[in-house]
This record gives sequence, structure tokens and C-alpha cells, in this order.
Amino acid sequence: MNPAFALHPRLQADTFAIGDMALSRALLMNDARFPWIILVPRLPDLCELSDLPDDMRSTMFDEIASASRALLNLAGFEKINVGALGNIVRQLHVHVVGRSSGDPAWPGPVWGFGVAQAYDSNRLEERAAALRSALKIEAPAIRLASAETRL
Amino acid sequence: MNPAFALHPRLQADTFAIGDMALSRALLMNDARFPWIILVPRLPDLCELSDLPDDMRSTMFDEIASASRALLNLAGFEKINVGALGNIVRQLHVHVVGRSSGDPAWPGPVWGFGVAQAYDSNRLEERAAALRSALKIEAPAIRLASAETRL
Repeated sequence: MNPAFALHPRLQADTFAIGDMALSRALLMNDARFPWIILVPRLPDLCELSDLPDDMRSTMFDEIASASRALLNLAGFEKINVGALGNIVRQLHVHVVGRSSGDPAWPGPVWGFGVAQAYDSNRLEERAAALRSALKIEAPAIRLASAETRL
Repeated sequence: MNPAFALHPRLQADTFAIGDMALSRALLMNDARFPWIILVPRLPDLCELSDLPDDMRSTMFDEIASASRALLNLAGFEKINVGALGNIVRQLHVHVVGRSSGDPAWPGPVWGFGVAQAYDSNRLEERAAALRSALKIEAPAIRLASAETRL
């Protein structure tokens, strides 16, 4: 979308690329404890949600809603948590996380909770494929997926 | 806006009414540790952000952006945290919180962190007045403010 967009190395290291939506790159957080999508608008120099240009806001909201519904449809999650924090990584990114009363952090937030448990690679591919299908987006090119996920 | 809207008692008990924006009731969290606005869309039966009708989404986003800017202008906050969690209170409400590297929860999230420290009443009124001015909204009627804040 914009040649100056580059994913922050920390986001790149912690996630697996699901694919690109109209505005955002959708990433699967590599933490099997929680079904966790991260949306990163593919524009340079965004830090706060309020930095998003007016004409991108409804798209951002729709992509958050699509990610929420994709997670709600995956399995019996009770609640979606949406957060834009950025205290550690300043590049604007929006977390969309499926929560259940049985999950380890419930009812607290997932951010900063314990230590991520990496998926095994089959399960990671399987979950990303299910989300791609739910979000109706294409898998990224193999070179991109490989470079970005460091698997 | 809609006669069936009623603020959840927990939100009512924990906050002080700033006033009503076009869509949302703006509340000041009664926790002097963090400058913390909660926006509650005045529509009944909303739980997830994705429950918001399409034609309300840009207004919701604009109100989040306005609350973010109001906090950024209040003092030297480094970052705004936006969150819609609702694991405890299901009525849709969006947190907008000013964060700084010196604050007690930094860089973790504020939700579920320690125990709220109530403002003294002068400081609460003063901060609410500053936010009303920044958000260009009116103070609620005295009866409403009194009933809602339980001061």
C-alpha cells in the first residue's frame, strides 16, 4: 500500500503472517494460550489510533469487527478483547483476542501476562489457515511468510 | 438517545460523569493514578465493538480520537492506551488512558493493576471540568451527576 511501511521487528518476531486486509496486515500472535490477532495498518508513522487519517477510520473499525467475528466463530469464546496499547512497540497495532472464563489470564488482560507459549508449527499453520478463510484473505507469498515469521 | 440505555451499576459506581458526546457517555474513572476516560455508547444491548451498527462506527472512532487528544493535551503523556475488554462488565465501554513511563503500571496495562486511588473531590471536579472543556461537551444536569457519581 505504501512503500515506506515496514513491520516493527518485534511484531515480526512474535507473530505469524495471516495476510493483508484492505488496510491492515493481519498477524497471528505466536501464543497458543490465547487466539490472538494483531492488525497493523500498512501506513508509515502511525502511533496512536487518533493518528489514522479520517478516511481510514471506518476501514480500521471494520477490520477490527471482522477479526472479532472470525475469532468468535472459531470456537466458543465468551468475549473479545480489543486493545491498542503500544507502550513497548510504538508502531500502531491493534490486538483482537478471544477470551474465555477458562483461560489462564481471565478476567484480567492478556498483555504482559506470563510467558507466551509458542504453537507447534502444524497448529500455527492450521489456525492461520482457518483465520484466512474466515477473513477471506489470501496467504502471503511464501518468501514473505518465511522472512516475516522466522519459522 | 435511546430510552432503554442504562449505565451498568459498576461503571456508575467507579466513575464520575464528564458528559454526553454525540454517541457516548464520557466518564472519568475515579482513579487518580491514571488519567482515564471511559466511553459508553448510549445504545442498549451492546457487548462487543462489532455489535455497533455500521452507521455508528465512525462516530465511535472519532470519539475515541477526541478523548485521546484531550488526554494528550492535558499533560505530558507519552502514549494513549485504548481498550475494549468487558470481561467483568459486559456493557460495551471503551477505555482511553493516558500513559507515561513514570506511571505505576508502565509498561504493562492498567486493567486489573493494583487498587484504584480515588481522587479528592476538588481534583475530580477540576479534571472533569478540564476534560469537558477539551471535549467541548456540557456538564450533565446536577441531578444526573449526583445520582451517577455517588459523591
